[in-house]
Amino acid sequence: MLNIAKVYDAAKVLGEIARKTDLILSKTLLEGHEIYLKSENLQLTGSFKLRGAYYKISKLTEEQKKKGIIACSAGNHAQGVALAAQKNNIKATIFIPATAPISKVEATRKYGADIKLIDGVYDDAYKAACEFQKETNGEFIHPFDDEDVIAGQGTIGLEILEQMPDLDAVIVPIGGGGLISGVAYAIKQLNPNCKVYGVQAQGAGSMYQSFKQKKILELPVHTFADGTAVKRPGDLTFELCRKYVDDIVTVTDDEVASAILALMERQKLVAEGAGALSVAAAMFGKLPIEGKKTACIVSGGNIDVNILSRVINRGLLTTGRLCHLTIELLDKPGQLKDVSTIIAEYGANVIRVRHNQGGENTDINDCFLKISLETRNAAHFEEIQQALIAKGYRITSNVQ
Amino acid sequence: MLNIAKVYDAAKVLGEIARKTDLILSKTLLEGHEIYLKSENLQLTGSFKLRGAYYKISKLTEEQKKKGIIACSAGNHAQGVALAAQKNNIKATIFIPATAPISKVEATRKYGADIKLIDGVYDDAYKAACEFQKETNGEFIHPFDDEDVIAGQGTIGLEILEQMPDLDAVIVPIGGGGLISGVAYAIKQLNPNCKVYGVQAQGAGSMYQSFKQKKILELPVHTFADGTAVKRPGDLTFELCRKYVDDIVTVTDDEVASAILALMERQKLVAEGAGALSVAAAMFGKLPIEGKKTACIVSGGNIDVNILSRVINRGLLTTGRLCHLTIELLDKPGQLKDVSTIIAEYGANVIRVRHNQGGENTDINDCFLKISLETRNAAHFEEIQQALIAKGYRITSNVQ
Repeated sequence: MLNIAKVYDAAKVLGEIARKTDLILSKTLLEGHEIYLKSENLQLTGSFKLRGAYYKISKLTEEQKKKGIIACSAGNHAQGVALAAQKNNIKATIFIPATAPISKVEATRKYGADIKLIDGVYDDAYKAACEFQKETNGEFIHPFDDEDVIAGQGTIGLEILEQMPDLDAVIVPIGGGGLISGVAYAIKQLNPNCKVYGVQAQGAGSMYQSFKQKKILELPVHTFADGTAVKRPGDLTFELCRKYVDDIVTVTDDEVASAILALMERQKLVAEGAGALSVAAAMFGKLPIEGKKTACIVSGGNIDVNILSRVINRGLLTTGRLCHLTIELLDKPGQLKDVSTIIAEYGANVIRVRHNQGGENTDINDCFLKISLETRNAAHFEEIQQALIAKGYRITSNVQ
Repeated sequence: MLNIAKVYDAAKVLGEIARKTDLILSKTLLEGHEIYLKSENLQLTGSFKLRGAYYKISKLTEEQKKKGIIACSAGNHAQGVALAAQKNNIKATIFIPATAPISKVEATRKYGADIKLIDGVYDDAYKAACEFQKETNGEFIHPFDDEDVIAGQGTIGLEILEQMPDLDAVIVPIGGGGLISGVAYAIKQLNPNCKVYGVQAQGAGSMYQSFKQKKILELPVHTFADGTAVKRPGDLTFELCRKYVDDIVTVTDDEVASAILALMERQKLVAEGAGALSVAAAMFGKLPIEGKKTACIVSGGNIDVNILSRVINRGLLTTGRLCHLTIELLDKPGQLKDVSTIIAEYGANVIRVRHNQGGENTDINDCFLKISLETRNAAHFEEIQQALIAKGYRITSNVQ
């Protein structure tokens, strides 16, 4: 049975290795509110997963350790298990679907784990891991539905209350539910008045739906918060959520992208999709935290930089700070100059220009100017468009 | 005269407001080395500048405070002064060149400062600030060449030694020299064995050149580490650097961009150009820190996300993880399919395709396929190119 002594024991064991990550006050993420960020993206391996994996491994018998450990993951759990095994000098075999991002595979390999890349998706890798487990009798480290793993994640709850004893609420990302189970359990034991809220991506809401319908449901997953893409909650984590979690909400991928951008711009922190769920819920008013001292767990920061680059662009487009204009020009001299002059007068910055002659739906004399602009906001972009229209230009597309 | 008691006094005063930023161990930025990151990018206002400004303001007389304070800055100093003034309930008038990024102007305005946007560059804004100072007799807060400002920045040195008493070396970004003067002074008083190294951008090396030639020099500046673009070191900061700094080196803008990308990917921290100078110097072997316990001050994180997006792309291109190919096709059916098949077989991810008919230097039957790819590294990209060539395709451009 999970008990608070076990969470304290985990904290003691983790003292050897895990970082006590900073609880960072933000006054700018949510206007007029104090939001505290538990920065587990700055944890070793870039996510909280190390905590549960390391504590679980520390509880194995010498005999179990000799047989080695096995895990299946395309992400943070793989890295957490690999580093925990390395620190304990035991062999880890980690099954990863071949579709996983190269960067995550390489990071796991660096911690010395034996990597098995399995063709197909997560379920195929999981099947292979189970077969391997039967052959070797090694210990399979479950990513969330395990009491020791949950106790390890629960140490984050202890740390938050130590760092901010009079906290009113904590918001926690949910995938399979290991993190929130541990955190909710620890917090409710020590300060039952502190609310514990969970957040899932709208496209991966298995715990949300199960929680609302009071029974375990399996759902398809589709979200870019890949660290939380879990089809079915754990049995143990579902029970703990029912008992200790006050409410669960969902956020959209666009809200998550905005939260990632806000964390970068205002807090100088890189968060992955799963890691930004809690901040998205706070920013977009999904929870009754008005006037409450609230902590958001930023659970991880392992986002592919290619994806990060796209998230930035999307956020800039959404807020009207990056804009694309297609303008129809008459094919006569001086038009490019005129357009450039108008844009310069309004203080926008041209970052890309393409000039194409002829389009299917236009007069043969016409040509198109495609311009990408840095603008202050949507209103600024609108002003520039109006100025162009006033000068007789036809704007055929203004995808913001 | 600067003395250690003053730095301790600054630490006491700053206890009211500044964050004691975390000293974060990184084992991955420099293979086989332990690098400690003093995360001043996580300081309020996104940079260390708050420290000096706040302490300086705290030392003003009531009469001086009544007259208000004046500053001239396009960046971090503006935000530091504005927040410090707000906290002290005094009026701040801040002169900013109109060419400054909108995001920095807005951030400064949010702290309640009176903003004067001056047409032209920094020097024009500075001139306007001086005129305003004569009119109002307000207190001009110098960004670096001021004993109280330097004492405030020196508190970072105290914190680093408290967080890691047996440190061997600390690497500090230099613009005008305020930060390194304070840090070097504090560290050499408390632990003379700890080396203090400075880093400047190659395109803004006024302190570097002055230090090497043992006299103050004024140099032109051209770097994307805009926070350090200072033409002439301060008189006071130059003297303190001569006395207390062990060496100064320079890094290129490309090295800085790589450091920014590494900090994001491996440490989940957003740094601006100036903030990443210290890490760039460590990563690119500019300093004798082999086997030494070394701290890098990551001085700030206020980078425009548009620029950050470009830095990411540049870093990806440099490391062969984003590649652009231009392939000449015969204008006959099936060629796009063939090329796509080869790329898919090699496990690269197509992120953009453009197909253009006709170019100036080609046969009228030819057309071009421009493809952007996500690849593992430069060797992976090379493999794909060889496979295409083996199938008879002509690659006309392969800008990595």
